[in-house]
Amino acid sequence: MNENKPHNADAIDDKEARYKARMQRKKAVIDESIARADQDKGVCLVLTGNGKGKSSSGFGMVARALGHGMQVGVVQFIKGSYSTGEEAFFRRFDEVEYYVMGEGFTWETQDKTRDIEAASAAWAQAKTLLENDAISLVVLDELNIALKYKYVALDDVITAVQSRPRYQHVVITGRGAPQALIDVADTVTEMQVIKHAYQAGIKAQKGVEL
Amino acid sequence: MNENKPHNADAIDDKEARYKARMQRKKAVIDESIARADQDKGVCLVLTGNGKGKSSSGFGMVARALGHGMQVGVVQFIKGSYSTGEEAFFRRFDEVEYYVMGEGFTWETQDKTRDIEAASAAWAQAKTLLENDAISLVVLDELNIALKYKYVALDDVITAVQSRPRYQHVVITGRGAPQALIDVADTVTEMQVIKHAYQAGIKAQKGVEL
Repeated sequence: MNENKPHNADAIDDKEARYKARMQRKKAVIDESIARADQDKGVCLVLTGNGKGKSSSGFGMVARALGHGMQVGVVQFIKGSYSTGEEAFFRRFDEVEYYVMGEGFTWETQDKTRDIEAASAAWAQAKTLLENDAISLVVLDELNIALKYKYVALDDVITAVQSRPRYQHVVITGRGAPQALIDVADTVTEMQVIKHAYQAGIKAQKGVEL
Repeated sequence: MNENKPHNADAIDDKEARYKARMQRKKAVIDESIARADQDKGVCLVLTGNGKGKSSSGFGMVARALGHGMQVGVVQFIKGSYSTGEEAFFRRFDEVEYYVMGEGFTWETQDKTRDIEAASAAWAQAKTLLENDAISLVVLDELNIALKYKYVALDDVITAVQSRPRYQHVVITGRGAPQALIDVADTVTEMQVIKHAYQAGIKAQKGVEL
């Protein structure tokens, strides 16, 4: 037995080799799926489900796009108590067009006519963004809620999304995404609640709804 | 019949009243659950699952926190090809401490020793942030991957998360969150893939991975 080599060195070498082989196979699979994806165009992403993180994910993509010097448009269809942080932050940037629907959550305003008017105005803004090829990313935050209550017509949304500029990305958030929207989207993620802080009795924090 | 009142006005009034009552019940339920949540402390949020939006959700929370003038710390445990946008963007801000683990995805470096060294260095940074009560939000991006490969010890993470400053929020992202981490987290969301653009043959876009 070689004094300079620990008695389990062969086993370690073997393990390292297997690790490397496994990682190489993994890389090959991923590289192949990326290579297959050869359509160079903007993506329509839908973030739905009841779990936390839908809107913040959309806002993270705004940050990413700004990091690449892109122009971004945001329309918030529901002005929640927690969205003020993002609004305060992203309004600082000239590259961001930011529009917030005037009213709060529908169950806070409790006035359907006013809700519909506010949603229609927000959708008019969204449509303008979806027609502007200078805008690389459009985030339509909580649009699914407006669709669910039929404050905005689904057909209009589908048409506007499908006829938007070729390289423009669009992110649509909110629970209960309609199937027709899922059908036309490229990527759809459902956020599922595994656990929620409210259930654990933790008070919502100023600014950071986690 | 009153000439000034459309013949279906009563039906409309009735529908509006039912709508209002439904929204009031909804508001009552939500207000109550918020009122029950009376523990004023920072939240530990875990974002896991295979779907898109985990990291971007964490970065959206960074934007939200910055909008409220908070100090933020970010550690990226896996330097992905797509994370350069966020890094370029958030490094602009003095309120953000940003640390990126030196290496790429494990299946791209294919060198376990180097991966472990890089992960250990990243975790040392994370621990410093988790001990600093001037930092209101700590994002540990893709830490779950480092845990899965056992590059970082789960016990150390649990201990550091549980003994962090009382008002500090921590967001941990990455697929395959270990059960012990889910157990200590306050809010856990699982991102599920309903559809992915790669499947539809769309090329990954510079800067915006949707």
